[in-house]
Amino acid sequence: MQLFYLNSLESDIQELPKEESNHCVKVLRMGVDDELYLTDGEGTMCRAKIILPDAKRCTVQIVERMLNYQKRNHYMHLAVAPTKNISRFEWFLEKAVEAGVDEITPIICEHSERTSVNLERLDKVVVAAMKQSLKAYKPRLNEAIKLQNFMNIPFQGQKYVAYCEGDDRKHLKEAYTPAVPVVVMIGPEGDFSKKEIEALAQCGYSPISLGQCRLRTETAALAACFHINFMNE
Amino acid sequence: MQLFYLNSLESDIQELPKEESNHCVKVLRMGVDDELYLTDGEGTMCRAKIILPDAKRCTVQIVERMLNYQKRNHYMHLAVAPTKNISRFEWFLEKAVEAGVDEITPIICEHSERTSVNLERLDKVVVAAMKQSLKAYKPRLNEAIKLQNFMNIPFQGQKYVAYCEGDDRKHLKEAYTPAVPVVVMIGPEGDFSKKEIEALAQCGYSPISLGQCRLRTETAALAACFHINFMNE
Repeated sequence: MQLFYLNSLESDIQELPKEESNHCVKVLRMGVDDELYLTDGEGTMCRAKIILPDAKRCTVQIVERMLNYQKRNHYMHLAVAPTKNISRFEWFLEKAVEAGVDEITPIICEHSERTSVNLERLDKVVVAAMKQSLKAYKPRLNEAIKLQNFMNIPFQGQKYVAYCEGDDRKHLKEAYTPAVPVVVMIGPEGDFSKKEIEALAQCGYSPISLGQCRLRTETAALAACFHINFMNE
Repeated sequence: MQLFYLNSLESDIQELPKEESNHCVKVLRMGVDDELYLTDGEGTMCRAKIILPDAKRCTVQIVERMLNYQKRNHYMHLAVAPTKNISRFEWFLEKAVEAGVDEITPIICEHSERTSVNLERLDKVVVAAMKQSLKAYKPRLNEAIKLQNFMNIPFQGQKYVAYCEGDDRKHLKEAYTPAVPVVVMIGPEGDFSKKEIEALAQCGYSPISLGQCRLRTETAALAACFHINFMNE
């Protein structure tokens, strides 16, 4: 099953972008009447047939539309400090999209060694993972934002911050209530500062633990993603 | 906290290997009386102090021994088909060691595009991840073995095979019983063949699902690892 991503699927006749057309016709050697799938990244999954296998502008006809395709039954927003080595963050992005996530925000913290990200590049990772894992919803990827600004954004749901210290932390599995929207924050290599944790508490973020193991930032973020999806299955 | 891996910790005076000595003295610039930790990868974690900061043979004295350090409360064996792109398998190895696993076996299946692995190289990944995540147990990494040979090895515990098809599959969370030893098999990019699944059933392997999402081999393997640890926390 080959999935292609288009911004709009309003018309039943669609033209694949140049790059996609080439991939479809030249690389995959698809021809007239061959079947492929299209998504707008907003829940619509379309079955389509090739009517003009042009390597520059491959034209297809939509033969079936599926709305809210594999809609998720819960909302998960992961706010993660980008890792110093960006490939680790990109890896997390790819895996989180595969496993299922709704929104991701790179957060810049006091101990962050990396204070900026290339959003365009990260978006490519998200799209590739969405296509590879055959999803019809493209997770929302926000611009990097400073922690103190992020924590003041209102959020209707559960608010948790993964933290490595403190005895008052519940394990995610005890703290999290399935089906209720959740935002989970994962700190940078140096973790959150005590100050940040106090400020987060003021904003309604409860510290949680992801278990005994010392996990890297990207591993902790993926663990939270897996666990929350797991608890909603 | 700096952790170093030595094959034996019998004597209270230990000499770090050349490479480790250099890292300790030249890179970390550690000196006399500085504290570091040693593990034998078999459950012993030692606190030690440097007595001779030699960049070629740094000598340390063990001042505290902790046995069965953070011993796991369950046994997990993951049998995973190495990915065509080995870096994806190495990534899985690193993350699985971080999250916690006891034994890993690369399995060669009917649809495997990769039929061999560089065990020495994979072992380096395991050791690095063990040190980075401050573990005192080094997961056992076995040589690659053909699926038909692996499935005939006796195993006292739960035996599951992650499979993408079939309606008789239970979700891992329904099938798995915490604390009981478990082996989980993850197939190659092309999944297991029907033949293989039938043969595995004959050997007592029940097909399980890891959820709705289509996951890459390495993601599925890590998902199983996270979920099983999660259910034992």
